[in-house]
Amino acid sequence: MQSTMMKTPLSLNTLLDRAGKLFPQSQIVSRLPDKSLRRHNFAQFHERARQLASALLGLGLKKGDRVATLSWNHHAHLECYFGIPAAGGVMHTLNLRLAPDEIGFIAAHAEDRFLIVDDVLLPLYRQFADRHRFERVIVYSFSGAATEPAFTDYEQLLAAAPPFAGYAPHDENDPVAMCYTSGTTGQPKGVVYSHRSTVLHSIGSSMPDFWSLSGRDTVLTVTPMFHANCWGMPYAAVMLGTKLVFPGPHLHPDDLLDLMQLEPPSFALGVPTIWLSVIQAFETNPGRWKLPHGLRSLVGGAAVPESLIRAYAKHGVTVVQGWGMTETSPLCTVSYVKPELQEISDDERVARTATAGVPSPMIELRIVADSGDGAEAPWDGKSVGEIQVRGPYITGSYYGIGADPVKFSADGWLRTGDVATVDSHGYVRITDRTKDLIKSGGEWISSVDLENSIMAHPAVAEAAVIAVPHDKWGERPLACVVFKPGQSATPDELNATLASHFARWQWPDAYEVMDAIPKTATGKFWKVKLRERFAARAA
Amino acid sequence: MQSTMMKTPLSLNTLLDRAGKLFPQSQIVSRLPDKSLRRHNFAQFHERARQLASALLGLGLKKGDRVATLSWNHHAHLECYFGIPAAGGVMHTLNLRLAPDEIGFIAAHAEDRFLIVDDVLLPLYRQFADRHRFERVIVYSFSGAATEPAFTDYEQLLAAAPPFAGYAPHDENDPVAMCYTSGTTGQPKGVVYSHRSTVLHSIGSSMPDFWSLSGRDTVLTVTPMFHANCWGMPYAAVMLGTKLVFPGPHLHPDDLLDLMQLEPPSFALGVPTIWLSVIQAFETNPGRWKLPHGLRSLVGGAAVPESLIRAYAKHGVTVVQGWGMTETSPLCTVSYVKPELQEISDDERVARTATAGVPSPMIELRIVADSGDGAEAPWDGKSVGEIQVRGPYITGSYYGIGADPVKFSADGWLRTGDVATVDSHGYVRITDRTKDLIKSGGEWISSVDLENSIMAHPAVAEAAVIAVPHDKWGERPLACVVFKPGQSATPDELNATLASHFARWQWPDAYEVMDAIPKTATGKFWKVKLRERFAARAA
Repeated sequence: MQSTMMKTPLSLNTLLDRAGKLFPQSQIVSRLPDKSLRRHNFAQFHERARQLASALLGLGLKKGDRVATLSWNHHAHLECYFGIPAAGGVMHTLNLRLAPDEIGFIAAHAEDRFLIVDDVLLPLYRQFADRHRFERVIVYSFSGAATEPAFTDYEQLLAAAPPFAGYAPHDENDPVAMCYTSGTTGQPKGVVYSHRSTVLHSIGSSMPDFWSLSGRDTVLTVTPMFHANCWGMPYAAVMLGTKLVFPGPHLHPDDLLDLMQLEPPSFALGVPTIWLSVIQAFETNPGRWKLPHGLRSLVGGAAVPESLIRAYAKHGVTVVQGWGMTETSPLCTVSYVKPELQEISDDERVARTATAGVPSPMIELRIVADSGDGAEAPWDGKSVGEIQVRGPYITGSYYGIGADPVKFSADGWLRTGDVATVDSHGYVRITDRTKDLIKSGGEWISSVDLENSIMAHPAVAEAAVIAVPHDKWGERPLACVVFKPGQSATPDELNATLASHFARWQWPDAYEVMDAIPKTATGKFWKVKLRERFAARAA
Repeated sequence: MQSTMMKTPLSLNTLLDRAGKLFPQSQIVSRLPDKSLRRHNFAQFHERARQLASALLGLGLKKGDRVATLSWNHHAHLECYFGIPAAGGVMHTLNLRLAPDEIGFIAAHAEDRFLIVDDVLLPLYRQFADRHRFERVIVYSFSGAATEPAFTDYEQLLAAAPPFAGYAPHDENDPVAMCYTSGTTGQPKGVVYSHRSTVLHSIGSSMPDFWSLSGRDTVLTVTPMFHANCWGMPYAAVMLGTKLVFPGPHLHPDDLLDLMQLEPPSFALGVPTIWLSVIQAFETNPGRWKLPHGLRSLVGGAAVPESLIRAYAKHGVTVVQGWGMTETSPLCTVSYVKPELQEISDDERVARTATAGVPSPMIELRIVADSGDGAEAPWDGKSVGEIQVRGPYITGSYYGIGADPVKFSADGWLRTGDVATVDSHGYVRITDRTKDLIKSGGEWISSVDLENSIMAHPAVAEAAVIAVPHDKWGERPLACVVFKPGQSATPDELNATLASHFARWQWPDAYEVMDAIPKTATGKFWKVKLRERFAARAA
């Protein structure tokens, strides 16, 4: 027996047409390099995205061709999100925080045919231009300056585009976007998303029990659009008619707080380090800004300390934690309060929010204690294992590499490299990256747990804990600490915050005070750099 | 270029395992024939649904075999929703409101192999048993009485089931359920849903801008589980851990109000005629019941009069209207308030709620003015046309019939037979079924608009308007009216309610006062019966 249902493919084009037809008045606000705001509505966006599609076809784009972007968060980047797939192309977001050589390697590996680049990023482009020759470089004049004749001007290209002749026919499994993992180890690896995976992620994530997005929201996207497609948020916002606010290149905490006064968001997304610096700026300048009351802040990319959740709660801002990675589209879990836990205390609520949360309906998640044998660890809140996931928006391979056994289990699940416990309610608590765990005298110490406890000390702005080699114990923890301006604490005072949660042997052997902790391109603590720096230290 | 995403199929089994693993404590409450309540939690449901799967496989069920249900709304029926597909079977819900011969025809047409039937419905089964021989009849003792030896007892079958050996392998397009349209014209026609269509409907419908379902809700399902799969709600509730309250056979307004006191819902679903009778019972018995404050009531299956929305709003209940049909899984549109309309007046809000609402993200909807040429009518709030829809949970054919050109456009859209306008904001306003429009002197009159205006008169409980043949004008409207107990109104008084919205020539030529308006198996006004009765009348 066959189902009688239509074989209609899931498609980004359906979402784009929906945006134009149902939400013509919804707003897109972009902050320009001079900090002024530019406004578009969805009717204009719908028109311009389709002009971009026509223009690319006019330039000879063929189905599956990669069009790279090197851009900040703004309306034209959003046009690429939909316009490139509308033409049958694949949008490849280049991460402008990587080393130029690495960007060039990635563009060459993906065989990108065209590049769409912000004029203000041309100096960066020139640093890797010799690593890969794009057939055509299209410059979006983000600054408003005239485009050099050697390049194609984005606005002129759109203005001269032939009339839109309809969307490129496609299967739902055809690619729409690609993104390389920032790769703290090994070469960067490419993940290719499809119409299907992108639509499923948008719809599944928007449910009330996940990130709960609606057309009434205003979303401030601090997460870069070159980082896991801005966590998929632009696709969902277009689908729902949600107002989008793009900060452009202005990611300094003062700038973000200024922008929140001009265009108050109801929903924001970004990594913990951004929100740490925003709350510090906010609290050290009383009365200068207001935090939008009722704001929900989706935080992901690294574990969120409880102290951060409490700091925001004092000002009426709810932190929602999500967990995922480039390989997972990205959201796999979100820390919403489950039905059976509605009556828990505020402290328990904060503790739940500080977990990575509960898996999304289409995602299967397991923890595997010993990566070798594939035996699933119980959901008891104690047993530790590597998170493995499976689902329709999880990558099953890497572009041009195939299924690497280090990254995929024998039965086809993605091995995330994140280590976690899952409690009986299904809340995932990340204890570490596999490579960030500290093995001291045969016992594991969680660097993430130590960091969160140290960051609970009122004088501490940031803390990162790494393993350093030790003759007797194998490895020992070392804590790198950044104090808030004008504040400090002694090692004994810091150890005192650990006393109730950690055995004495788990305490760091030393505290290194620094001006800043090095961060990766995506704003996470760059522990590789710390390890290099302290590798020679005899603990 | 290929996407690197996993080819994981969408599957009801993933939702079932999720329910067991993440929401073991969530409740299922069923009202028994003696009006007592039976409780299960999701852990038990998860176990029992898989026992049912094992038992069916033990009985020799093969992939794609149909297992019919003839059941009220209760936990065992929910077990069939998931247990039959878990074994690779197709659940076929038989509509117990149909004539026995029609039920027998449908079971034979679907070639149902097994039947699962409530013991209290065996008298009905016996009336059509000669029309189709089921290989085995499994009796669920809903009343608690012992099962006759001629039949298989549902509980004994589950108790004796072999250990669960895993889900039947499947493609996402494999069938999980089938449902026949109640068919006021022609023979009933079967629609076959798939894993894919059911999962997509569940996820898409649960978003905040649609029916906004979460695990914190308690859902009262008045819509029968044999009617378009209870509008797909049981699947979504299982996915999200939402508490389910099943009224069993007790659908009298007094019984529903009693049940709402015992298990207060936050969400209810049913046809307008049910909610009309509930509000009448509630208002004629002041102080006897409370309506749960904050209740959202999803009403569909027929147009909702503004008077009903206002009557419930007075008591803190929000009516949400949806539109769809068996062929569409069913929800295609929901009347939520769009982002650009947040500031409208209460009157406008009611007017919006009285429309069928706005299409869901995965559904494409158009209105076609003349069914012949396929030209799309504009979304101007005035142009009238047949609603046509396309999408991944819309049927593209009927079981054993294929694509009937009367039901599908040449380019593959479903022709719904419903006639509507769509305004510039995308709100669909159903004006009539194609066959219910009245054509008088070459001009169309909407029977639905007349009905809603007549029902706004305080003395009127129900009103149905039909066309009767007329020598001069072709057709003229006739209104059938049921007054509230002890109340009445003259034709002139009723016409006075029409004066501001309708030209005099659009008024009914006559009002027929009745004790009750005949209703179809799904609770809609049965206009075919009214037309038969008044066909001979010379207007």
